[in-house]
Amino acid sequence: MTLKDRFSHDVEALQDRMTHALEDLDGSGKFKEDLWTRDEGGGGRTRVMEDGALIEKGGVNISAVHGALPETIQNHFGVDQGWFYATGLSLVLHPKNPMVPIVHANFRFFELYDNQGMTNVVDRWFGGGADLTPAYLFREDAVHFHRVWKEVCDRHGDTLYPEFKQQCDDYFFNHHRGEARGVGGLFFDYLRETGEQTAEQWYAFVTDAGDRFLDSWLPIAERRRDESYGEEERKWQELRRGRYVEFNLIHDRGTLFGLKTGGRIESILMSLPPRVQWSYRAEPEADSREAELIRVLREPEEWI
Amino acid sequence: MTLKDRFSHDVEALQDRMTHALEDLDGSGKFKEDLWTRDEGGGGRTRVMEDGALIEKGGVNISAVHGALPETIQNHFGVDQGWFYATGLSLVLHPKNPMVPIVHANFRFFELYDNQGMTNVVDRWFGGGADLTPAYLFREDAVHFHRVWKEVCDRHGDTLYPEFKQQCDDYFFNHHRGEARGVGGLFFDYLRETGEQTAEQWYAFVTDAGDRFLDSWLPIAERRRDESYGEEERKWQELRRGRYVEFNLIHDRGTLFGLKTGGRIESILMSLPPRVQWSYRAEPEADSREAELIRVLREPEEWI
Repeated sequence: MTLKDRFSHDVEALQDRMTHALEDLDGSGKFKEDLWTRDEGGGGRTRVMEDGALIEKGGVNISAVHGALPETIQNHFGVDQGWFYATGLSLVLHPKNPMVPIVHANFRFFELYDNQGMTNVVDRWFGGGADLTPAYLFREDAVHFHRVWKEVCDRHGDTLYPEFKQQCDDYFFNHHRGEARGVGGLFFDYLRETGEQTAEQWYAFVTDAGDRFLDSWLPIAERRRDESYGEEERKWQELRRGRYVEFNLIHDRGTLFGLKTGGRIESILMSLPPRVQWSYRAEPEADSREAELIRVLREPEEWI
Repeated sequence: MTLKDRFSHDVEALQDRMTHALEDLDGSGKFKEDLWTRDEGGGGRTRVMEDGALIEKGGVNISAVHGALPETIQNHFGVDQGWFYATGLSLVLHPKNPMVPIVHANFRFFELYDNQGMTNVVDRWFGGGADLTPAYLFREDAVHFHRVWKEVCDRHGDTLYPEFKQQCDDYFFNHHRGEARGVGGLFFDYLRETGEQTAEQWYAFVTDAGDRFLDSWLPIAERRRDESYGEEERKWQELRRGRYVEFNLIHDRGTLFGLKTGGRIESILMSLPPRVQWSYRAEPEADSREAELIRVLREPEEWI
């Protein structure tokens, strides 16, 4: 089997494991599945949970799309023709309890061909990552999350964790606010075959990362899901979700790419939180728990 | 006085008239004022009302900024140096009652100079407009709104209303959803001195339009503010506000321009609604009032 077919099967199996584990964790919410096809080639399987006990809204989506390279993507890659194949899994979970952090993860593979169809590979790479977005900061949660991802990285190369941790801090940054979206994690892209790493080695890394996702977030969700909160904490959570929306709609390449290349809107925008607020000059009180979060978002930390 | 100074004074006076009239209308909400200055030159006066009786969140902002043209704007205008002066008023009102439509208006003047400072005018133009975004469609409200703007336009030229109405339908369009943001109104930009129209004539048109804003929206707000509604209508309103956010953050040139050129974030994003929801595949039932709105947004109508 080609790398693309293997990876495509892997994300299918990974989606199954994730949605089963998340339904078990939630206890009452169920994923609703939508199968969709893309007119120009390929399709996907979208699974969304709404109004669960723990997960207020969440999606675990996979897709494998292919065909002639859309013009907007041609420009982006600086090529003037060709075919492509793109497959991956994308996950966003918006918990109900403000003490449980939002989590996002994505694992993907892209292959570019000449204009003879999907035969002659011109370029190919892996991308993805995982990042954590708390409304209230629990330092041990950020440490746990980063520790899992550092373990994964370290099994595949010494330089990976520091490099991908930094890229995550750089990428998930709301430049117009001067603050990070959350406490980071990993972000990687264009992982190509080089003198040092074969495509098989990157494949092993990315599938390994996908397999560890549940370990990175479930223990955090389990220990925070019964923390008490009131109206004030809920409001702060909804305001912070507003920053999440700002990032996804203004800065996120994946979202904008999808929207501008005719992706399936409802699958792309499942990443948006269920209930959100914007308030004019919503600034936390000095020395509050809310202010502590902002401080860390303005100056991203080393968690390990 | 130069055109820019006259227009700048006009928008100050207009802001006063608007905020007084809106406080009278609201009955309990008051505008909170923030004066701000821009490091590179100029500043603004932001007035925001939150949690009024009628207006859940609204802003009426003016600014007059100037200085060397930021690089991102140079690229946009295709010039490689120069100074600029930009002044205008921007208004967005998010009513609490889902039966009262959101309204937005904007009246602005831009002047471009060579690199000798603000002396030698190279180019100058007016821009702006007003548009209405209902969550529930009342045809007579859309007709009233358009009628006011058509009257204003007709006093200044026969072609203005059809032209600016069409530009509004084209501009305030959520391309990724295939639907208009609302029921339109007017949108105009780059109103320059030509053989047919002097700058003074455009000035007269734009200030006239500013003066008519209250007539376009207040009667609608007054007749809808006491309409009854329940949880369902409120949810639909919050979902529709989500589309408003999508437009402003993905497509609106003004918002993105402001964010990417270092404008005052809180003044720019006061346009975002107070409480918003996103739900997966939120589609209205066939033949419902909600479906009636969507039908009109998919195929913009001639209201007059």
